[in-house]
Amino acid sequence: MAWREQILKSLKKNSRLPYARYAQLATVREDGRPANRTIVYRGFLQDTSKLTFVTDRRSKKIGELRANPSVELCWYFPQTREQYRIAGTMRVVKVDDEDEAMLRARGEAWKRMSDGARSQFAWPFPGIERGVDDSAFSPDPVTADLPPLEEFCLLVLDPERVDHLSLKSNERTVFSRSSEGEGEPTAWDRLRVNP
Amino acid sequence: MAWREQILKSLKKNSRLPYARYAQLATVREDGRPANRTIVYRGFLQDTSKLTFVTDRRSKKIGELRANPSVELCWYFPQTREQYRIAGTMRVVKVDDEDEAMLRARGEAWKRMSDGARSQFAWPFPGIERGVDDSAFSPDPVTADLPPLEEFCLLVLDPERVDHLSLKSNERTVFSRSSEGEGEPTAWDRLRVNP
Repeated sequence: MAWREQILKSLKKNSRLPYARYAQLATVREDGRPANRTIVYRGFLQDTSKLTFVTDRRSKKIGELRANPSVELCWYFPQTREQYRIAGTMRVVKVDDEDEAMLRARGEAWKRMSDGARSQFAWPFPGIERGVDDSAFSPDPVTADLPPLEEFCLLVLDPERVDHLSLKSNERTVFSRSSEGEGEPTAWDRLRVNP
Repeated sequence: MAWREQILKSLKKNSRLPYARYAQLATVREDGRPANRTIVYRGFLQDTSKLTFVTDRRSKKIGELRANPSVELCWYFPQTREQYRIAGTMRVVKVDDEDEAMLRARGEAWKRMSDGARSQFAWPFPGIERGVDDSAFSPDPVTADLPPLEEFCLLVLDPERVDHLSLKSNERTVFSRSSEGEGEPTAWDRLRVNP
């Protein structure tokens, strides 16, 4: 997975910018229009080529992903002037997921977050009209020893195609998954294309 | 258009970061999957609330927009920690557009670009396998006095909904277009929602 090593290298070279971990996730709404929002990269799933994120079960992307799990993540690294376009399918891991390993990964992602980020899952329903009482946005600290709130979901992106562009060198490489054999290591084709 | 003023303010406050003019544009591919790529903001169309960008006629988004003109732009401002999600429809202005005013806007966008950015429209076909000869990526300078190359397209985004989120203040406001009367000034509803 040459592209995975490349992303880890990009993360390192951009590490002085906290927002280098922010990327934009595109999904398709149930009416066929695209949706696009910023999301925070939360690491690869162990040593796989799957990328993880977290979200609130009440957010609109949950329904969008149920109807159409196809996504494209666009990730721009300002320091190195690189763009990755990562297309694939997104799996949502909720509190009642039947896959033990995925539930464990969800629990670990919960523990790795800050108290502040965790407490957002106790906030009022996102996106609806805001009331006058702001106290609900300052809940008691949600510490790592508490189990994940039910609203907390892990997102796992399984890439099928990664398009890497360097604006510095004008090099562009497209990686495409070429085999999907169960248990076998995934093979990737690599093509140098015009920028 | 309170949101337009807000964006101009965000641009000003983030002006030390050249990449604050970069945003991510989501479209829907012809197979129903989302696409997402970085695009450079090129200003509002005169005093309207339409945002302009440029692209190459040979890029995949041209076909995607023909089949489905709905887009969502996700624009993150790192300095002020703000996100705008701008949903609407995208119009492509090509060399043979029949609208004189739009063709004029295309010509003006062409003139405002740097020689280097203009010369990219003379590069080999984007996205296909790269040959060994790199000389085609160093064409003669394409200066502002030359007419726009045929490959040069202006993109005009007509917003219907703007979702503004501040990560600093946790304020989130959604602006929705409420009237579309020809010739009448567009009215916008404004709603403060939960972040």
